[in-house]
Amino acid sequence: MNDKIKVAIVGGSGYTGIELIKILDNHKNAEIKYITSRTYAEKKIAEVFPLTLSLKNNSELTFIDEIKKGDLNSVDAIFLCLPPGKSMQYVSEIVEIFKGKIIDLGADFRIKDENEYEKWYENEHILKEYIPEFVYGLSEINREIIKKAKYIANPGCYPTAALLALAPILKIKELKIESINIDSKSGVSGAGKKLKDEYLFLNIFDNFYAYSAINHRHIPEMEQEINKISSKKIKICFTPHILPLDRGIFSTIYVNLKKDLNITDLEDKIYQYFYNDYKSEIFVKFLGENIPSLKNVVGTNTAHIGFIFDKRTNVIKIFSAIDNILKGASGQAVQNMNIMFGFNEDEGLRLNSIYN
Amino acid sequence: MNDKIKVAIVGGSGYTGIELIKILDNHKNAEIKYITSRTYAEKKIAEVFPLTLSLKNNSELTFIDEIKKGDLNSVDAIFLCLPPGKSMQYVSEIVEIFKGKIIDLGADFRIKDENEYEKWYENEHILKEYIPEFVYGLSEINREIIKKAKYIANPGCYPTAALLALAPILKIKELKIESINIDSKSGVSGAGKKLKDEYLFLNIFDNFYAYSAINHRHIPEMEQEINKISSKKIKICFTPHILPLDRGIFSTIYVNLKKDLNITDLEDKIYQYFYNDYKSEIFVKFLGENIPSLKNVVGTNTAHIGFIFDKRTNVIKIFSAIDNILKGASGQAVQNMNIMFGFNEDEGLRLNSIYN
Amino acid sequence: MNDKIKVAIVGGSGYTGIELIKILDNHKNAEIKYITSRTYAEKKIAEVFPLTLSLKNNSELTFIDEIKKGDLNSVDAIFLCLPPGKSMQYVSEIVEIFKGKIIDLGADFRIKDENEYEKWYENEHILKEYIPEFVYGLSEINREIIKKAKYIANPGCYPTAALLALAPILKIKELKIESINIDSKSGVSGAGKKLKDEYLFLNIFDNFYAYSAINHRHIPEMEQEINKISSKKIKICFTPHILPLDRGIFSTIYVNLKKDLNITDLEDKIYQYFYNDYKSEIFVKFLGENIPSLKNVVGTNTAHIGFIFDKRTNVIKIFSAIDNILKGASGQAVQNMNIMFGFNEDEGLRLNSIYN
Amino acid sequence: MNDKIKVAIVGGSGYTGIELIKILDNHKNAEIKYITSRTYAEKKIAEVFPLTLSLKNNSELTFIDEIKKGDLNSVDAIFLCLPPGKSMQYVSEIVEIFKGKIIDLGADFRIKDENEYEKWYENEHILKEYIPEFVYGLSEINREIIKKAKYIANPGCYPTAALLALAPILKIKELKIESINIDSKSGVSGAGKKLKDEYLFLNIFDNFYAYSAINHRHIPEMEQEINKISSKKIKICFTPHILPLDRGIFSTIYVNLKKDLNITDLEDKIYQYFYNDYKSEIFVKFLGENIPSLKNVVGTNTAHIGFIFDKRTNVIKIFSAIDNILKGASGQAVQNMNIMFGFNEDEGLRLNSIYN
Repeated sequence: MNDKIKVAIVGGSGYTGIELIKILDNHKNAEIKYITSRTYAEKKIAEVFPLTLSLKNNSELTFIDEIKKGDLNSVDAIFLCLPPGKSMQYVSEIVEIFKGKIIDLGADFRIKDENEYEKWYENEHILKEYIPEFVYGLSEINREIIKKAKYIANPGCYPTAALLALAPILKIKELKIESINIDSKSGVSGAGKKLKDEYLFLNIFDNFYAYSAINHRHIPEMEQEINKISSKKIKICFTPHILPLDRGIFSTIYVNLKKDLNITDLEDKIYQYFYNDYKSEIFVKFLGENIPSLKNVVGTNTAHIGFIFDKRTNVIKIFSAIDNILKGASGQAVQNMNIMFGFNEDEGLRLNSIYN
Repeated sequence: MNDKIKVAIVGGSGYTGIELIKILDNHKNAEIKYITSRTYAEKKIAEVFPLTLSLKNNSELTFIDEIKKGDLNSVDAIFLCLPPGKSMQYVSEIVEIFKGKIIDLGADFRIKDENEYEKWYENEHILKEYIPEFVYGLSEINREIIKKAKYIANPGCYPTAALLALAPILKIKELKIESINIDSKSGVSGAGKKLKDEYLFLNIFDNFYAYSAINHRHIPEMEQEINKISSKKIKICFTPHILPLDRGIFSTIYVNLKKDLNITDLEDKIYQYFYNDYKSEIFVKFLGENIPSLKNVVGTNTAHIGFIFDKRTNVIKIFSAIDNILKGASGQAVQNMNIMFGFNEDEGLRLNSIYN
Repeated sequence: MNDKIKVAIVGGSGYTGIELIKILDNHKNAEIKYITSRTYAEKKIAEVFPLTLSLKNNSELTFIDEIKKGDLNSVDAIFLCLPPGKSMQYVSEIVEIFKGKIIDLGADFRIKDENEYEKWYENEHILKEYIPEFVYGLSEINREIIKKAKYIANPGCYPTAALLALAPILKIKELKIESINIDSKSGVSGAGKKLKDEYLFLNIFDNFYAYSAINHRHIPEMEQEINKISSKKIKICFTPHILPLDRGIFSTIYVNLKKDLNITDLEDKIYQYFYNDYKSEIFVKFLGENIPSLKNVVGTNTAHIGFIFDKRTNVIKIFSAIDNILKGASGQAVQNMNIMFGFNEDEGLRLNSIYN
Repeated sequence: MNDKIKVAIVGGSGYTGIELIKILDNHKNAEIKYITSRTYAEKKIAEVFPLTLSLKNNSELTFIDEIKKGDLNSVDAIFLCLPPGKSMQYVSEIVEIFKGKIIDLGADFRIKDENEYEKWYENEHILKEYIPEFVYGLSEINREIIKKAKYIANPGCYPTAALLALAPILKIKELKIESINIDSKSGVSGAGKKLKDEYLFLNIFDNFYAYSAINHRHIPEMEQEINKISSKKIKICFTPHILPLDRGIFSTIYVNLKKDLNITDLEDKIYQYFYNDYKSEIFVKFLGENIPSLKNVVGTNTAHIGFIFDKRTNVIKIFSAIDNILKGASGQAVQNMNIMFGFNEDEGLRLNSIYN
């Protein structure tokens, strides 16, 4: 008897789709029933990626153009790996038919304020009434509501790194935050596989620079969740940079405290908040005053977080490192599936770093 | 009921040991009973590598100083991950007590001619009578004798890449080989983790060079197997180089044919030999005239092999790419274990490339 | 007739020494008379670095153990490339004899407050009375006093990148700065050539992390100059990171303004201050709202600076990129020499990026 | 009085053109009078490359669309940096008017046998009668005829590395060569700046592979010169590979000798031939049995060559490293100009490696 849930992946041939396939191929409680791709329709996965995929259970899986309406309810959950604007379109087409769960890896349902969405994404939202139904899937922070959720808006990669780093201290009531500067460095895979001059080897190797230095679309997402956690209106200043490597995000976060701050044992208190929040977590390792290394998290679903309190300047510096495609996308998506269906949270996600 | 075999890893804290742990942690038919390390004795694996390992079944596993004689026969197989000269020492201590199988990842039992061994390794062999007992564990080539073997000498990384590339054409009887030049390029992990000036970032990054350009110790190993397969005395000229990256070996092999060669449809014939030899193999992919890419094999247990016949010069060029720590060491070791115990050959080894 | 000034380099075999040699070899107005190195005494430069140096005028130059007292005054200027603490020792030995100019590339005379020096460097200063004689050699900012200076304390690499980026806005009187966070990323050459585990290829390649995340010794140097320029007591929060490449520093600077700030056309004003300060500079290029790229400055003596004013959060983000060994050390040292001796400021320093 | 020669660069905005500008800007005996570029016509160099070029004498130089016929003879030499097929077209237009010297960095006049040219380049040659007029500009080998040449066909990058490595031993009369395998590894800049999928960062970084593994167009060029030097018909088997870095070529050359070879002191003899050929050369360093490193030659005009004689297999292994854009293109072009005009051969070319 096969008691695995059946899932579908819509838009399965990009980075996040492939990563879902790899994870789910090794998952005890789930199996891929459908996978769609306009580009590769009718082709076997094992034919499209013969050189990089070595699948245990899915070597016969074949891309289809789209899931027929009548077949939708033969799956228990759908992962959406679609470009901005396409998720809401797809959801609008299936939402009244499909009874199962949806995990959207795109950005369409993350921003709860539709005006904010339209301002930052310069696009009309066509399914406003469903935005509130999508729980923001930051697994460790929202686990309880994820358990009961039907729809998940899976977080962006930069927000995952930043919010896991900020959440514990945002809960320290007496902390008066003056400003937050988030300086993030990401591997090139964050940009996908576009054929653009700026992604040529000669323009990235041996190089380093910032991009989208103002108004990056992950800002409203981070602020929304920061404000939810802290119950305060806090704006953040965010700068992403390109690292000359493939995978991973390293964020250095400066939480500037008000100057008149006077809290006894603040450093210990911060430590305690971090420690308590993450001591039982499988996928967040709190390193105390040690600084994470990108290489230790790449290939895993784990976030590494360390902090230092700089008394001289009243700044809490937090360091956060994740794999942008795993904890920052497909890994967390499966983690959310595990939570929603009551599976072991780490099922399929015991992934080791390739380096030791 | 637990019907898994029990294995021990001796010398388990280096590159190949850790890789064995990662693979076996996900293995349906085997479990790690003992793991030894002088450096980390009494420490849990999960304590020693907390940042890079995320184990499903072995998080409680603890390094021990050594396996007690009396406990030896509670395991079915022992993997040896020891420096040159240390394997034979260890084997000499246990061989009369231990009833199980031994897979030696070191070089001590690879060279069958003890004089050759002593010449190339500049070391006396203290267990000559056991050398013939160790089957050379090149899985695809020696599968039938591996099945019946008690002891395995697991191949070196360069020999694995080269021999898989050469084996099919060495069997073409009418082929008259004039000379073979093997030009290999390896990532830095091949050198282990030594603290030497030459392994500093500044000396390797953005750099490329050859090393051990004469008399590398993998030469007698390659020649021994080449001669066994071809039934001819063929000498090879081998040059290893350091690539500015962590993992992987890419070998370009020039098989210079005698000038008076005149074989009808030689190109097709070569293709057929490769195709037939590898068409049913899980861990060797023959790419025909396509050229392998290092990135496609890193993180997997698969060898990719392509060839081109240069009619102008009568040279068969063969390209071969593997992950030096997996197919070139620990991956093939587990593959051999699977073969010896009759498990599915790919159990635990369905590993995907991190890049797609 | 040879009207070139004569210079000596003390401690000439490290990174900064070699870079001085390369620059001075191509300098119209200066020639190297002495170069000292304990390690290479009696050896020709061309013998010590035969593979990487190709000198026009200095191929016969020979390292000496030390400059004899009696010979000191045959040179017009001395460059000191010595480890922390060694510069003051050397200066103490020669200062009463030597009539010429000294350019110290070390840190001993940068900090003007001897208590600050002793606190941050955990070392007693043995030549306190001479500290005030050393002009802080940030060429563009202190050009007028450098012209008249006898002794120069050449700035650190991180301070050079940060101070050139901050100087223009620190002069805007009405600007109320709440806090400054400096997030810097440096190539590995910044750490010199030490044989340490952390500088192994395997620990840096494909990796990224912060280090010295609190109390880096460049902090007092930066604060001292910031306060001098702004006439205000401003503390900075500084974090250096290691980039997986050889050369260059990229700094992202967050100048958090007070929230009640209300300045008309602030963005334009900032632009004007930058533009005016740097429009005639050869070695600082102001890019406006464009973001610098590390690769464009590596190999040159030029700093590239861009900025963005984030109105939403009242933060001025400044981006600054330099070559840490050139503008961040030896290049600026020669620039200072040029200024002190009235040579063309760019003599010897018209260096092009290797990449285009 | 200005007694510098005047030169023109046709097609000056690509890699080789820019490198010529950098070199000539620092040249005592030559100045750039014209530089053409269809893309940047009417723009100043200093405007087109403001971020990477810092020129002493040419900051006002302006790209023009083309040199007017009437102006041609105001220059003494023309460098052609044009795509395949375009050089002969340009030469055909000016050859009867222009009295000065031409240095063609392209491939159109390298192959002396027009049929060979047309076969390998799949293009009709429109100026066959002029092919013999172009001297193959391998500076060290053909210096004497370069001195008297009017037209130069500047060698390709791979041929430069290979031929400098092979020339000395090709002159050893008693040496019987069975076959030659040339295994070359090149940085990405060799491919120019094309926007192609294969040149994306994600496809090259952390990767390694061979390309054009058969019939690369540099083969006939190498064979032609090998045959000229050795007076024998020798075919070579050549394989280029892409290294994950920007600049440099490293070639490993296997000269397989006939098995019945019996030459007394062959190793010493080879050493002597190399030593004698290169002992007075500025731009070829013979390292004896030491192996070159790519990083030592990048940024310089120097070739580093080492060799090892493998007695076991009767193979001479030669290692050769150059900067593909300098000694492999623009550097050698200026070296040839220096030779032709009787300037110091190293004028403008005393370039140091950026790393030490």
